[in-house]
Amino acid sequence: MSLVTEQTAFSIEHLESFKSIIGERYVFTDEEALNYFAHDETEDLHFVPSVVLKPRTAEEISEILKLCNEHQIAVTPRGGGTGLSGGALPHLGGVVISTERLNEIITIDERNLQVITEPGVITEVLQDAVKVKGLFYPPDPSSRGTCFIGGNVAENSGGPKAVKYGVVKDYVLNLEMVLPTGEIIWTGANVLKNATGYNLTQLVVGSEGTLGIVTKVVLKLIPLPKYDLLMLVPFRSAEKACAAVSAIFMAGYTPSALEFMERDALEWVSRFMDSTTVVIEDDIKAHLLIETDGNNMDVLMQEMEGMAAIVSEFDCGEILFADDAQQKAELWKLRRRVGEAVKSHSIYKEEDTVVPRAELPVLLNGVKDIGRKYGFHSVCYGHAGDGNLHVNIIRGELSEEEWNGSLKDGIREIFQLVKTLGGTISGEHGIGLVQKEYLPIIFDENQMRLMRAIKRVFDPNNILNAGKIFDA
Amino acid sequence: MSLVTEQTAFSIEHLESFKSIIGERYVFTDEEALNYFAHDETEDLHFVPSVVLKPRTAEEISEILKLCNEHQIAVTPRGGGTGLSGGALPHLGGVVISTERLNEIITIDERNLQVITEPGVITEVLQDAVKVKGLFYPPDPSSRGTCFIGGNVAENSGGPKAVKYGVVKDYVLNLEMVLPTGEIIWTGANVLKNATGYNLTQLVVGSEGTLGIVTKVVLKLIPLPKYDLLMLVPFRSAEKACAAVSAIFMAGYTPSALEFMERDALEWVSRFMDSTTVVIEDDIKAHLLIETDGNNMDVLMQEMEGMAAIVSEFDCGEILFADDAQQKAELWKLRRRVGEAVKSHSIYKEEDTVVPRAELPVLLNGVKDIGRKYGFHSVCYGHAGDGNLHVNIIRGELSEEEWNGSLKDGIREIFQLVKTLGGTISGEHGIGLVQKEYLPIIFDENQMRLMRAIKRVFDPNNILNAGKIFDA
Repeated sequence: MSLVTEQTAFSIEHLESFKSIIGERYVFTDEEALNYFAHDETEDLHFVPSVVLKPRTAEEISEILKLCNEHQIAVTPRGGGTGLSGGALPHLGGVVISTERLNEIITIDERNLQVITEPGVITEVLQDAVKVKGLFYPPDPSSRGTCFIGGNVAENSGGPKAVKYGVVKDYVLNLEMVLPTGEIIWTGANVLKNATGYNLTQLVVGSEGTLGIVTKVVLKLIPLPKYDLLMLVPFRSAEKACAAVSAIFMAGYTPSALEFMERDALEWVSRFMDSTTVVIEDDIKAHLLIETDGNNMDVLMQEMEGMAAIVSEFDCGEILFADDAQQKAELWKLRRRVGEAVKSHSIYKEEDTVVPRAELPVLLNGVKDIGRKYGFHSVCYGHAGDGNLHVNIIRGELSEEEWNGSLKDGIREIFQLVKTLGGTISGEHGIGLVQKEYLPIIFDENQMRLMRAIKRVFDPNNILNAGKIFDA
Repeated sequence: MSLVTEQTAFSIEHLESFKSIIGERYVFTDEEALNYFAHDETEDLHFVPSVVLKPRTAEEISEILKLCNEHQIAVTPRGGGTGLSGGALPHLGGVVISTERLNEIITIDERNLQVITEPGVITEVLQDAVKVKGLFYPPDPSSRGTCFIGGNVAENSGGPKAVKYGVVKDYVLNLEMVLPTGEIIWTGANVLKNATGYNLTQLVVGSEGTLGIVTKVVLKLIPLPKYDLLMLVPFRSAEKACAAVSAIFMAGYTPSALEFMERDALEWVSRFMDSTTVVIEDDIKAHLLIETDGNNMDVLMQEMEGMAAIVSEFDCGEILFADDAQQKAELWKLRRRVGEAVKSHSIYKEEDTVVPRAELPVLLNGVKDIGRKYGFHSVCYGHAGDGNLHVNIIRGELSEEEWNGSLKDGIREIFQLVKTLGGTISGEHGIGLVQKEYLPIIFDENQMRLMRAIKRVFDPNNILNAGKIFDA
């Protein structure tokens, strides 16, 4: 299978064809546009495409893909550009297809608790649109204010609510998509249960834009819970904070969020945001942010009390119960912006480890041990309730050689530990470009062979997001 | 792609090989065994295999499949034999591999709320085993007392709890499976979130034993709800009963079961079971069985009252609130045994339609209109909360020609209506043998091409459950 490269013949003729398909004003070759689409939120990577296209319809995307498929031109689909694994980076040059003009919420079906939307809708816009009708779309990555639903589908995004409500795959009922060869298909039906043929929908969710370009998304909605309560629990030991997580679930509670932050994470983001909401005592090593939601306030109070009693057995400090909507919002803002704060603090690499949740203390200790061995500092935080720990490796004083050389062995050791614990190397960020070299830690040749062959089924010429996840 | 047929060379030599792989006592060629494995619960179909094998391990299955793949011998995997679409029928002869000896629950992981089980464990056995530890595995097809977890994975089974808790796919975290070419793989990891490569797990769930033979299943568990309440609501109009279903959800309720039964269904099963639990007034046309569950009895009472108020707006009769555990069990037994009762009443064909739930009244009316047009009587019941309506077409006075001839046009019209309503032709029973001729109503050539090609990726020689779902 040939790999499409930058050397792909890409000529003025193709540009003219693109203009005739979507109109001249939606074909961009100026430096500003090309540079903008050369990066996303992944570390400091930068790859300049040849052209950026902003089609409006599935039919236009179909025409573009037919042309690119015929001429073997590399195509990179792009949503909000908030990805952390490089999925939207045009590392082979060629064409970027931005879905930003497919930005209409087509129908909010209140009778069936479903929404049909285009992929370029910002996640928070969709959430707000259904919320006014008393409905709830739970998946909400930290980037929800700028990321697109289509990107969330591509990465199978999670976010803090996943622990109770599941991730994107649990809400996608049906997808309209354009295949790399140009055909437009639906992957399933608009139903809650489906035992009709292979589950193409679930195959496409999380496939990182390598199997097709999604042009319509049918999502399940649920009734919006009326109330929520939030508490921030400080711990004198990060390991004990992690251990408290599984104790909460073993006691029968299902919080609507259960987030872990190492001391550095909360300290850095407080400084970054100039926030004094949380005062961190000297002996505190980590925090859990715990939310519960539902329709009965008495029940929620009981749940909070029950969980508070559990965490108190893990050497915690004084619990901060959020008093009002404003304080809740402030605590959530702190949690959501940890990633940005770490980024502003130092060059870093973010790993998206996930393990069965009771293994979190072992994972955390292992990460710190490996850090000592390889001489790196890490800041860990994430969706502890899901066993999903974001490990941010800080560049700090590491030399160029250490940073781009021996550090990889350290990352490899972390991922080997994750695998030993029954986990995997990405919980919600995807593999994209930056993790693909580590994929063989998780999959053997048989699994890789199946995935490569599935890719070929959808994309025989390997034009669409080629070289993401794996080399086909 | 060649279709494996009964003419496949199957010789005494192969038998000897099978004996050397799994031991002579687990190789069956006697008439009784062959006849037993010639049928499942699908209508009155009967196909005799050449041999039945009962291996104990993935490694043995691997050896068997390697041999069959090399010699292009048709293989049919089989679980509990309770399927309704013919998925376990050896319609091409050849080898049946029964998973009945892979019947161990390997680990109930209370720390992580997971269970690792072999596929030959009976669903109810697994449910009971986790229940004593305060854990809950919700999917429970009516056949739960005899069906296998492996078969449930193959069919992506549902059952009454799906409306609140989801179907099998929502609980499967990871699968060990033997590919038709003999390799043993894991499809994912034992984690709640996974964005690592293509979702092979979800591709395999519901693939009806055509992509591999599952040998270990890792399932998510949830805390067992403490209480439940149940009511049976009679309606004077079946259409209004269906309309009440979506009204309940639109009001923000999520019952833990919401089952629909036409009058005939409840009447026939009461007679079949000799039960006097339910007295059906003359003017009653249908019932809804509504359950709510949770950990707070006050909340459940409020929910029941709220839902009772809603159904009363749809011209319902006197509601029967189940008084105690015994009455609940009796009502559930009636609901669970409707299928058997219908079967004992007459030869029938069961269709497994599913639509967005607010379309149920349109579907029900459409089914009756089509019945009048083609002269058949139908008995409808099912998981109304999911929009999943089982349409049982009763043979009654239909001639052989009508039953096996023109009736197909009627079924086709039902499925076309289902598609028009945004639904599909199977919600939980699968396509298997009996629905495959209708699959083109739902999928066009592009979708079929993708599915056929995926089948070839896993099973290049088309030996495993060939001719199920579609002809490869």
